[in-house]
Amino acid sequence: METPWEYRFAHRIQKMGSSIIRELLKLTEDPAIISFGGGLPAPEVFPLEKFKDACNIVLDNFGPQALQYGATDGYLPLREMISRHKSRYSVSVSPNNILITSGSQQALDFIGRLFINRGDYIVVEGPTYLGALQAWNAYGAQYITVPVDEDGMNVDELEKALRVGPKFIYCLPNFQNPSGVTLSLERRQRIVELADKYGVPIIEDDPYGQLRYEGEHLPSLAYLDSIYRGDNGSYTGNVIYLSTFSKLLAPGIRLAWVIAPEKVIRKLVQTKQAADLHTATFNQMVAYEVGKGGFLDEHVKVIREVYKQRRDVMLETMEEVWPSSASWTTPLGGMFLWGMAPEGIDTTELLKKAIDRKVAFVPGFAFNADGKSSNAMRLNFSYSKPDTIREGITRLGVLLKEESIK
Amino acid sequence: METPWEYRFAHRIQKMGSSIIRELLKLTEDPAIISFGGGLPAPEVFPLEKFKDACNIVLDNFGPQALQYGATDGYLPLREMISRHKSRYSVSVSPNNILITSGSQQALDFIGRLFINRGDYIVVEGPTYLGALQAWNAYGAQYITVPVDEDGMNVDELEKALRVGPKFIYCLPNFQNPSGVTLSLERRQRIVELADKYGVPIIEDDPYGQLRYEGEHLPSLAYLDSIYRGDNGSYTGNVIYLSTFSKLLAPGIRLAWVIAPEKVIRKLVQTKQAADLHTATFNQMVAYEVGKGGFLDEHVKVIREVYKQRRDVMLETMEEVWPSSASWTTPLGGMFLWGMAPEGIDTTELLKKAIDRKVAFVPGFAFNADGKSSNAMRLNFSYSKPDTIREGITRLGVLLKEESIK
Repeated sequence: METPWEYRFAHRIQKMGSSIIRELLKLTEDPAIISFGGGLPAPEVFPLEKFKDACNIVLDNFGPQALQYGATDGYLPLREMISRHKSRYSVSVSPNNILITSGSQQALDFIGRLFINRGDYIVVEGPTYLGALQAWNAYGAQYITVPVDEDGMNVDELEKALRVGPKFIYCLPNFQNPSGVTLSLERRQRIVELADKYGVPIIEDDPYGQLRYEGEHLPSLAYLDSIYRGDNGSYTGNVIYLSTFSKLLAPGIRLAWVIAPEKVIRKLVQTKQAADLHTATFNQMVAYEVGKGGFLDEHVKVIREVYKQRRDVMLETMEEVWPSSASWTTPLGGMFLWGMAPEGIDTTELLKKAIDRKVAFVPGFAFNADGKSSNAMRLNFSYSKPDTIREGITRLGVLLKEESIK
Repeated sequence: METPWEYRFAHRIQKMGSSIIRELLKLTEDPAIISFGGGLPAPEVFPLEKFKDACNIVLDNFGPQALQYGATDGYLPLREMISRHKSRYSVSVSPNNILITSGSQQALDFIGRLFINRGDYIVVEGPTYLGALQAWNAYGAQYITVPVDEDGMNVDELEKALRVGPKFIYCLPNFQNPSGVTLSLERRQRIVELADKYGVPIIEDDPYGQLRYEGEHLPSLAYLDSIYRGDNGSYTGNVIYLSTFSKLLAPGIRLAWVIAPEKVIRKLVQTKQAADLHTATFNQMVAYEVGKGGFLDEHVKVIREVYKQRRDVMLETMEEVWPSSASWTTPLGGMFLWGMAPEGIDTTELLKKAIDRKVAFVPGFAFNADGKSSNAMRLNFSYSKPDTIREGITRLGVLLKEESIK
């Protein structure tokens, strides 16, 4: 018999997102399966010694503070460090424009909580980051999908979408998750203009911006908005910018940040207070200790080298063994590329066959806000070692060739 | 001019809770003010060396795992440890009944998200924990307040409340925050019976249960529910039980847990995945390393000794210097006691005068779900050292005497 908790649950008005990525991550627990499905950094690049030193320094010098409750907006020296770092390559912000969150997923959740009323339209890229859909589904969001190509979001389609009156635009400009594509400078400028024209603000989600393996760094939407408004690089507030320590340092400490107008930060702080009081003090102090001397700028070079090699191995293997009827993106950075099986192959079906061959990916439909089936797949190249990538991509290539013949 | 983010915010349908405790915690930053307002553990009892050793052991032996993404439900050895510990003094549960959260506040938030539809009634104690109100206000909860006396929740009033058809009962049975009172065994049994009679489930929030300074440990509602149903101490699932490492180890690592029916845990896991993916892997592994050999059972004895002394000093000083027209509770454990100013004194007004005298508390109205003014105040005795407690309580006593004469 159901207990009252279960009975009540059954009668709750609630739309829960599926948990495809989590289900897939479970597969990675089978060591026989080569999984390109997760979004994991390579554990080989975690700066363990530096992190350990930082733990000891924090506990030796600031132990009682590190283990105590802390401020909801975050550890001030860490926010100051982030504001200094951002000002080097993008807009200049004050620590009052920054909230520390428990990973970027939390920032997406809070943004949904603060801004989305049931039924609101959100403009997303097609495909887009699954975690954002999961976060915002809970608030009853509806989505208008703007397709992406090798230069990112299609700006003509964006303008049509903006005329529907969406709440905001959600955009991952650099090495997009899942497609790996990068928004061109011209389109960045155009998006900022269109956002201003229609009075629709932007969420710029930038977890991978520092992980560029070739080409020149492109300015952030937050920066371009400032230039467009004649504010010369001062943060103007039409773009909420998200980034994270998960890719530069380690995801297991759950540390990310939001840059937003002060008034929005104050509301986000109230939201966070009700949601989990604050992000772990100890973790913030350790991250500050790791990062304060410019270490992360040096460390990211190591990450870039490792990931670039893995990306190259993946691309080379696809070139060698995938059928000519398949295609894929060539990411300039980040952790993912987007493989397109030949037309007519549904990658959700393909995944089952792939798992039989001990290789896995995330099927493209998971990243479609409209849930449409897809012939695409997201392939992660940061986690597996080069030999494993070669083996797994070869298995997929053989499978794709067989499926193409049918 | 408002940017679109700000303009949109202004038009959001949203009820935000106030942030009285946070505002008050800001006062504690002025070292000249003796604050009994916060709910902080004494930093002197943090097991810094043990914690540091654990960090080093985890990073030396399991570094790559500790810094990587982890499972949403939590680190399995930690959940196993919690299930073993619970089985010693309460119901027996499996790790599948446990979700690790980023502090108990997150558990309260998730429960609100999963179970509360706008307008639902929740039965709370009067007074009750402010953080629960903040969490559930965001989901449009309405409250039915059941008054507490020295033996906890009034069970006759509870039955009246249950006939209104509330979603659940929220109860802090041990050394309640804010009042410090403990629910008697007879009332515990009666609450379990009434909950069953009306088919209304219970949230049992137990952050302080281990911090008992006198008397015998009383069985949890979760355990009594099992006995009532003839299940002999196996977890029966009508009580969701919350507890935390914040009081036994350290709040700055943000680690707590929920015990719930497996079906509810699975939904909470989906909620957590959308909200912040998972609780920091590193923190969970460190807490496991600290706790695995039974250390926390030893360590809690140190905490009890320190807090008991502070409680005693607070009570003695009140006895000595507070006017006879004031009264207060005598908590058998925990971190708070509840002081009642003479009738007619509104403690929100009193607080302003107290701050002029460099002493602070949380006024009682903050813990009233109906927002009614109050002559009560919450006084924390765990954080300040005995001499400081004596000084602060004396200042308050002098002020109360002056106010009584008016």
